[in-house]
Amino acid sequence: MQLKELDAATEKKVRDSFAAQTAMTTVGATMTRLAYGQAEIELPAAPHIRQQQEFVHGGVVAMILDSACGYAAFTTMAPGVEVVSVEFKINFLKPALGQKLIARGRVLRPGKTLTVCQGEVFSVTEAGETPVAAMQATMAAVAKS
Amino acid sequence: MQLKELDAATEKKVRDSFAAQTAMTTVGATMTRLAYGQAEIELPAAPHIRQQQEFVHGGVVAMILDSACGYAAFTTMAPGVEVVSVEFKINFLKPALGQKLIARGRVLRPGKTLTVCQGEVFSVTEAGETPVAAMQATMAAVAKS
Amino acid sequence: MQLKELDAATEKKVRDSFAAQTAMTTVGATMTRLAYGQAEIELPAAPHIRQQQEFVHGGVVAMILDSACGYAAFTTMAPGVEVVSVEFKINFLKPALGQKLIARGRVLRPGKTLTVCQGEVFSVTEAGETPVAAMQATMAAVAKS
Amino acid sequence: MQLKELDAATEKKVRDSFAAQTAMTTVGATMTRLAYGQAEIELPAAPHIRQQQEFVHGGVVAMILDSACGYAAFTTMAPGVEVVSVEFKINFLKPALGQKLIARGRVLRPGKTLTVCQGEVFSVTEAGETPVAAMQATMAAVAKS
Repeated sequence: MQLKELDAATEKKVRDSFAAQTAMTTVGATMTRLAYGQAEIELPAAPHIRQQQEFVHGGVVAMILDSACGYAAFTTMAPGVEVVSVEFKINFLKPALGQKLIARGRVLRPGKTLTVCQGEVFSVTEAGETPVAAMQATMAAVAKS
Repeated sequence: MQLKELDAATEKKVRDSFAAQTAMTTVGATMTRLAYGQAEIELPAAPHIRQQQEFVHGGVVAMILDSACGYAAFTTMAPGVEVVSVEFKINFLKPALGQKLIARGRVLRPGKTLTVCQGEVFSVTEAGETPVAAMQATMAAVAKS
Repeated sequence: MQLKELDAATEKKVRDSFAAQTAMTTVGATMTRLAYGQAEIELPAAPHIRQQQEFVHGGVVAMILDSACGYAAFTTMAPGVEVVSVEFKINFLKPALGQKLIARGRVLRPGKTLTVCQGEVFSVTEAGETPVAAMQATMAAVAKS
Repeated sequence: MQLKELDAATEKKVRDSFAAQTAMTTVGATMTRLAYGQAEIELPAAPHIRQQQEFVHGGVVAMILDSACGYAAFTTMAPGVEVVSVEFKINFLKPALGQKLIARGRVLRPGKTLTVCQGEVFSVTEAGETPVAAMQATMAAVAKS
């Protein structure tokens, strides 16, 4: 991940928003690295987030990748707006095995209202990282309610 | 939901698979109605599955809709195969408010290997149902491992 | 197609915009029916728009369905704005055979800025209509340049 | 484009298939570079492929990018099979201006039956290349009919 550091206010804005997502705590996800236009979320492959074949549920994979893309977009947005997902599309490339998953989102095309993002989820084993999913997503800046 | 009833073996196959998804238990989802080519999943809008604005997290919305589409496809698949999500695309239409969400998936085009599905998530309040998300998805039948 | 008729100014706005799309003339597409939130485009399956297997090219199928969705959205937009495609996703259900194709787009969720649409393309033979593709799309209203 | 050269038979298979797509000739597209898992298609921004605002029609942008992704996948497929698009999703990033467009498709995850691809379309002006669209697509290998 190429790093262009965030100013402290933006870093705090993004991490506070993530911390307020109870769904992330429920699945066990944590926000690790942040940079301008980039966000990374890690998720241990715990027993409570599986599908029927004992891999991490595809929906959970989508959840952390949607969040990684959304927060990547949020790092580029002006203060005082909120980020929401307009839509996303995800392809599952391999079963989500391994000890943990890492979701990496990045901004492909920033915009005042709409921001287009891409991202991948990698499964991490002792042998290294393997891509398990890829996403293309549209995020929107909306007025804080 | 127009019902074409499932035979007992298919009904059991689908409900057993859903029951084995710990991720569904974790978020609090239950499988309600099933019919040939259709599946319905309900999710109370509980505090542990929220995003930063106190709505149900979009990723959780996607998770139950992916499962509803996947199990809709699974009802049409031959015995002895497993269903996996190839990819899906979701549009978020409104914030996921309300007391509970209902995800409804249906088969648009069945196939021996690939099955195309569509589905919606509705938020349920005393005033009725409001669509909050729409999905178009591709599911695959794979050999049981 | 359930019809809620358009006022004359909106009808003219949409048909004039379609007529200005030289790409539609090039492939041979015509705009047939319009209603509030709905648009229909027809395309004879002519030899100049084929892929390598002598079916209509999937990209051409996508093109008329994108336009049908876009113009469906445009019927619901205020005067003085232009419609653009933000993104779309298409699933191909069957080969695009038959004498002609009909693309039908409809608004799923109108909005001041973003409008979500769905649509299908049908191939038409003497035996009737067969769905060959399904789309879910996001359209935006932008200021006229 | 990082090049891993194709053997002559694969190169011929791909170029012959492209040449058989009358839709590509109709819009004016040509296949330029090919490599293992990669394909590039160029399209002059001619007057006959425009939308209502005099940019290249989004559907045409999608068409050449779908083909670039499909042929990227085709380079990795065994002899004797045909490639078809299962589905794709495209985000439009900027208006398709410039003298010509270049579509670049690449394989993200090859597979015996399903191959996942990504690609971009760039508009080319004297100032350089600007990305105007991004795609994520699923291609399938099917038996030759």
